[in-house]
Amino acid sequence: MQVGIIGATGYGGLELLRLLYNHSEIDNIHLFSSSEEGVAFSNKYTHLRKIIDQPLQKIEPKALQKLDVIFTSTPSGVSSKLIPKILTENVKVIDLSGDFRIKNTEDYEKWYKLSPAPQQFIEQSVYGLTEWNEKEIHKANLIANPGCYPTAVLLSLLPLLRDQLIDSENLIIDAKSGISGAGNKPNANNHFCETNDNTSIYKINKHQHIPEIEQAMSMFAHTDHPITFSTHLVPMNRGIMATSYAKLQKGITKNDLLNSLHDKYEQHPFVRILEDSSKVSTAQVRGTNYCDIHINVDERTGRATIISVIDNLVKGAAGQAIQNMNLMFGLEETQGLTQIPIWI
Amino acid sequence: MQVGIIGATGYGGLELLRLLYNHSEIDNIHLFSSSEEGVAFSNKYTHLRKIIDQPLQKIEPKALQKLDVIFTSTPSGVSSKLIPKILTENVKVIDLSGDFRIKNTEDYEKWYKLSPAPQQFIEQSVYGLTEWNEKEIHKANLIANPGCYPTAVLLSLLPLLRDQLIDSENLIIDAKSGISGAGNKPNANNHFCETNDNTSIYKINKHQHIPEIEQAMSMFAHTDHPITFSTHLVPMNRGIMATSYAKLQKGITKNDLLNSLHDKYEQHPFVRILEDSSKVSTAQVRGTNYCDIHINVDERTGRATIISVIDNLVKGAAGQAIQNMNLMFGLEETQGLTQIPIWI
Amino acid sequence: MQVGIIGATGYGGLELLRLLYNHSEIDNIHLFSSSEEGVAFSNKYTHLRKIIDQPLQKIEPKALQKLDVIFTSTPSGVSSKLIPKILTENVKVIDLSGDFRIKNTEDYEKWYKLSPAPQQFIEQSVYGLTEWNEKEIHKANLIANPGCYPTAVLLSLLPLLRDQLIDSENLIIDAKSGISGAGNKPNANNHFCETNDNTSIYKINKHQHIPEIEQAMSMFAHTDHPITFSTHLVPMNRGIMATSYAKLQKGITKNDLLNSLHDKYEQHPFVRILEDSSKVSTAQVRGTNYCDIHINVDERTGRATIISVIDNLVKGAAGQAIQNMNLMFGLEETQGLTQIPIWI
Amino acid sequence: MQVGIIGATGYGGLELLRLLYNHSEIDNIHLFSSSEEGVAFSNKYTHLRKIIDQPLQKIEPKALQKLDVIFTSTPSGVSSKLIPKILTENVKVIDLSGDFRIKNTEDYEKWYKLSPAPQQFIEQSVYGLTEWNEKEIHKANLIANPGCYPTAVLLSLLPLLRDQLIDSENLIIDAKSGISGAGNKPNANNHFCETNDNTSIYKINKHQHIPEIEQAMSMFAHTDHPITFSTHLVPMNRGIMATSYAKLQKGITKNDLLNSLHDKYEQHPFVRILEDSSKVSTAQVRGTNYCDIHINVDERTGRATIISVIDNLVKGAAGQAIQNMNLMFGLEETQGLTQIPIWI
Repeated sequence: MQVGIIGATGYGGLELLRLLYNHSEIDNIHLFSSSEEGVAFSNKYTHLRKIIDQPLQKIEPKALQKLDVIFTSTPSGVSSKLIPKILTENVKVIDLSGDFRIKNTEDYEKWYKLSPAPQQFIEQSVYGLTEWNEKEIHKANLIANPGCYPTAVLLSLLPLLRDQLIDSENLIIDAKSGISGAGNKPNANNHFCETNDNTSIYKINKHQHIPEIEQAMSMFAHTDHPITFSTHLVPMNRGIMATSYAKLQKGITKNDLLNSLHDKYEQHPFVRILEDSSKVSTAQVRGTNYCDIHINVDERTGRATIISVIDNLVKGAAGQAIQNMNLMFGLEETQGLTQIPIWI
Repeated sequence: MQVGIIGATGYGGLELLRLLYNHSEIDNIHLFSSSEEGVAFSNKYTHLRKIIDQPLQKIEPKALQKLDVIFTSTPSGVSSKLIPKILTENVKVIDLSGDFRIKNTEDYEKWYKLSPAPQQFIEQSVYGLTEWNEKEIHKANLIANPGCYPTAVLLSLLPLLRDQLIDSENLIIDAKSGISGAGNKPNANNHFCETNDNTSIYKINKHQHIPEIEQAMSMFAHTDHPITFSTHLVPMNRGIMATSYAKLQKGITKNDLLNSLHDKYEQHPFVRILEDSSKVSTAQVRGTNYCDIHINVDERTGRATIISVIDNLVKGAAGQAIQNMNLMFGLEETQGLTQIPIWI
Repeated sequence: MQVGIIGATGYGGLELLRLLYNHSEIDNIHLFSSSEEGVAFSNKYTHLRKIIDQPLQKIEPKALQKLDVIFTSTPSGVSSKLIPKILTENVKVIDLSGDFRIKNTEDYEKWYKLSPAPQQFIEQSVYGLTEWNEKEIHKANLIANPGCYPTAVLLSLLPLLRDQLIDSENLIIDAKSGISGAGNKPNANNHFCETNDNTSIYKINKHQHIPEIEQAMSMFAHTDHPITFSTHLVPMNRGIMATSYAKLQKGITKNDLLNSLHDKYEQHPFVRILEDSSKVSTAQVRGTNYCDIHINVDERTGRATIISVIDNLVKGAAGQAIQNMNLMFGLEETQGLTQIPIWI
Repeated sequence: MQVGIIGATGYGGLELLRLLYNHSEIDNIHLFSSSEEGVAFSNKYTHLRKIIDQPLQKIEPKALQKLDVIFTSTPSGVSSKLIPKILTENVKVIDLSGDFRIKNTEDYEKWYKLSPAPQQFIEQSVYGLTEWNEKEIHKANLIANPGCYPTAVLLSLLPLLRDQLIDSENLIIDAKSGISGAGNKPNANNHFCETNDNTSIYKINKHQHIPEIEQAMSMFAHTDHPITFSTHLVPMNRGIMATSYAKLQKGITKNDLLNSLHDKYEQHPFVRILEDSSKVSTAQVRGTNYCDIHINVDERTGRATIISVIDNLVKGAAGQAIQNMNLMFGLEETQGLTQIPIWI
C-alpha cells in the first residue's frame, strides 16, 4: 500500500508516521507539506534521522492520485477546503480534523467559528468511532476521525446509554488531558514553566467537542440531552482521563453496567474493562491504541462514576485512524497497533 | 509566643515550620518527635541548614506546658490518642489530622476504619474552616483543622448552598490533587516513574473527606444530601483544583452566584473571585493561603461549573492552621501569611 | 524607600516583585513598561490579584526621578540604551541584564552579538557578586548584577582559585538549569511537550556567560585561563546545579578546600557548605537566596568535584539584586531574603 | 525461539517484555519469579491486561532447560549465585546485572561491596557492548550486558581513544540520568515530591560503573588512566545524557574526531552522529535502541565536548540485550528493535 500524510509536522502527523512505519502492509509513506517542500523530514524532526530522511513533497494532484489512502492531519478550517480537491474514487481520505465530524453545519459554525465544508462531503463522510461504526467505515471513502475527548467519553458511555442503564439527562463529564492535545505551536499556555507543576481548566462549556459527543450519543444511543463537559490540562505529554458521572436508572446495578460493557466490547481488542480501580491511570495505555474503562457505583447516591483513559495521540487520533484504515482495506483490525504500553 | 509542632517531619509539619518561621509574633518554635529525640532537625532536612538547626525534643508534659499553642501534624489515629494527654487550659491545640473533625463517631469509624477520639474532646473541638467559623475559632482551645479537599470544596460551594442558589441534591465534585497530598512515606503510588507523566483516580466514593464535606454543608448551609466526590492524582507537587457541578435553582443567574460569593468573601483577604477563566490554575496560589474561585454557567444545561484552587499544604493545611492561630490569639488574620504566589 | 522595576513582566521582574513586596524597608514598588502603560498588573499576572493591582506606568524621567533605586530587568541590548538615560546622582540602578558586566567591549560584542553600552557607564558599573565585591557595591550607583550561571560557578570556585588550591588551567564546568532561565517568551525550546521528560544541551562553548566567569576569575582570583563551560536544560522550573572539575594543586587535601570555603563564607549568611553529599540538590535552595556548596575529592585521580546549587531566579537574579540593594542603602544584608526553602 | 525472563517485575525486565513481545522470531516468553509463582503477570502489571496474562512460573531447572535463552534481570549479588545453576550448554544466558562485567574480582568486591561470582563464569562471560565485541558475542553462552552509563559513555569515547585523538589522561565525564535508572523499589530518593522539579548528584566518585568503564577503555582502546565520572538524577523517567570533556591530542581537529566516529559506526544501525547540536536531547532516542553522539571542539581551550544520549532502559539495558541475542542466534541485528523514537 501507498499512503500519504498531509500535515506530518504536527503531533498527530508525527504519531501517524511512528505507527505506520512498522505497519506490515504499508510499502511507502509519502509526506506532504504546503510550505516546506523539499526539506528532508529528518532535518526538521531530528529524532527521525537514519529512519525517515525523505524530503517533504508538494501537495499535487499527480502525486496524490497514486496513493491508496491519505491521512489529513491538518487544522480545522484547512481540511474542509483541501479534502474536496483531493478525494477521488481511487483515493480514500481519513481526516483527523473536526471539519467533517459535525453533520449540522450550523452547529459546526457555532462551535468552531469557521465556515463548514461543502454539504455533499459532510454527508458522504463516515464518523470513524471504530467500535461503533464498523460497517460504515468498511465502505467509506472519507472518514471523519473522532476527536480525542469524544473517543474517551463515547467508548465508556455509549453502551450504558444505549442499554438505558444510566440517565442521559444529567450527564457530567470531567476530562483531563496532557499538553500535547493543544498542538505544537508554542504559546503561553504550553510554555514549560507555566504548565509544569500546574493544573488548569479551559474552554469551560465552550469546547468544540461538545456537539461531537452529543451528536454521537444521539446517533448510537438515541439520547437527546445536552451534556455538561469540562476540560482540564495536567502536566503530562500524553493521555486523557474522562471521569463521567451519571444517575443509574431505577433498579440497575453495577453488574448490569459491567455486563453491558463486556457484551459490547468482548470482541473488540482495544477496549479493556478493569475490575480493579487501583491502577486506572493514563500511563496504563501510553503509546497504544487501548481504551481502559472502569466503573464504580455508589450506593449512597445511586450514581455511577465511569472512568476511561486513552492515549490522546493514539486511540484519540493516529491509532484510531489506522484502525479505520485497516477496516477500510480489509486488513486485520490490529495491524500496526500491537505495541505494549510504555508504562514508565 | 511559644509554639510547638508535633510531627514536624511530615509535609504538613514542614510547611508549618516554613510559614511560622517568618511570623512576627512567634518567639520560638519547638519541634517534637516521638522517635527521633535529639536529632538536629537540619540533619534530617538539610534544606534547613543554617536556619533551623535545633534538635528534636521528646514529647513531655513539662516541655509542652510552657507553650502557648501546639500544632499536631500527626496521622489520623495518633492525634486521637495524643491530644487528650496534652490539651490543658493553658495550651491550645490545633490538630491537622482528621481525628476531631467528624462529630458522629460512627461515621468516623466507618470512613477512617479507626477508633474515634474520646467523645468529650470531639464535642469540644471546633471545625477550623476559618471563613465560616470565626466566632467559634476565636474562643476555641482545640481546633480540628479542615482537610485539604474539604477546604477547596466548601469555600466555593457553601455560599451558593446557603443562599439556595444551587440544587444540593445532585452535587458532583471532581477534585485533582498534587502528590504531596498523599504524604511523604515512599510507596508505589508516589514513586516518581509511576506518577510522573501520569494521571490516576483513587478511593472512588470511599475518600474519608466525604463525610467531612457533608457535615460542613449541613452545619453551615443546612443541606442534607449525599455528594458524589472523586479524587485524582496529577503529576505536580502541590495544589488542588476542585471542579464542582450543580443545577441552578429556578430563576437563578450567574450574577446571583457571583453576588453571593462577593457578599460572603469581600471582607475575607484570602478568597479571590476570578471573573476571567483563562488563568484559573493551581499555580496561581502556589505557596500561599489564597483560595481562588471561578464560576461558569451553561445556558444550554442550566448547570453551573464551579472551580476552586488552593495550595493543599497551605490553605489546605498549615496556612489555614496559622490563620486559625491568629484568630485564637487575637492577632491580625493575615499575619505570617502574606507571601506572594510562586507562580513559576 | 521608593523602588521601581522596569521590565516587571519577565520572570526576573516578577521575582523581584515577589521578594520586594515583603521587604520591610520598601514603601512603594513602581512598575514600568514601555508598551503596556495603564494596564493593571494583576490583569496581566492574575496570580497577583488583590495583591498588586496597580497599573503599569510609562517610563518617564519625571516618575523615575522620585525613586531611590530602579531595577532594570530588561533584555541585553535594551539596558545598554536605557540606563544612560535614567541613571542620575539621586537614582541608583541595579541592572539584571548582561549589558554592563563585561568590561572589555570587544568581548561583549563577540559573545553577545550586540553593540556595547557607552564606555563611561561600563567603567562606572560595579559587578554585583555580593560576597566578593561588598566594598564596591556599598559605594556603587550602577550595579551589573551577575548572571545566574556565573553566580553558581564563581561562589564555589573563587575561594579555591584565589587560595591556589586547584589548577586554574584545566577547569571543566558542567551546568544544569531549569527552563525559567530561558525566559518567558514561548518558543519550541520551552514548549512543555518538548522539554518535559527530556534533557538537552545548548550553546556548547558559546554561552555569553563564559567571558563573565573568566573576567571574574581574573578580577577576584587573578587567574587567566580559558574555561570549558557547558549548559544543559533539565525539566524543572527553577534551579541551577554547577558541577565543576579541577585538578588539586600538589599536596593539597580535601580539608584544605573545605577550610578555604569555610574561611571565606563563615560570615556570609547565604552560602552554606555541605559536608554530606546525599542531599545536594536544587530543591534545597528553591525560592531562596542560598547557594549550597559541596566538595568531593577523588584520591584515584587527584581531582576535586565541586558542586554548587542556587535558585536561578533568586540568588541568580532577583535575590542577589536585592542583597546588593541592601548593601547600597546600608540595610541589613538579609532583609527581605529570609524565606525558608520550598523544598517540596 | 523460546525465551525466559528471570526478574520480569523490575523496570529492566518489563522493558525486555515490551520489546520481545513484538520480536518476530520469538515464539514464547516465559516469565519466572522466585517469590510470586502462579500470579498472573497482568494482575501485577495491569497495563499488560489482555496482552500478557500468563502466570509467573517457578524457577526450576526443568522449565529452564527447554529454553533457548534466558535473560536474568536480577539485582547484582543475585545473578552471581543464580547463573551458575542455570547456564548449560543448551541454554544461553544474557545477564543484565553487574555481576559478570568486572573481570578483576577485587575490583568487583571494592566497588560493589559484594562477593564475586565464581571465577570460571566470570572468565567465560563476554562483555556485551555490541558495537565493540560482535565476534565474541556471536560465540558467547553467557553475556554480561553493559551498564546503562557505560554504554552511553563508551560508545562515544572509544573510537576517539582507540584512534588516539583525545588525551586519555584527563577525561571528565558528567552523566545525567532519569529516575528509572534507580529501580522500582520505592524510597525517599524516588518519591515524586522529592525528585520532581529537582536535580541532584549522587555516588560522587563512588559509582560502580567507574571500573566497568575503565576496564572497557583498556580492553577496546588500550588506555590506562582513571576517569573522573559523576552521575546526576534529573526529573524524567528515562534517558541518559553523558557529557564528556577531553583535551585534543596535538594537531587533531574536529574533523578528525568526526571521521573516527563515522568510520567506526557507518555500518552500525543504532549509532547516529549528529552534526547539529540544536537537537541533542534524551527525548530524541526515547523508547529506542539508538545512541546519538554529537561533538563540539572549542578552539579557545583545545578541548572537545562529546555528548551521547541513550534510553537507559533500551540501549542501556533491554534493547542492547536483545541486540546481543540477535547476534548470538544469527538473526538480523535490528530484529525487534526498529521502533521509532517516542519524541513527545
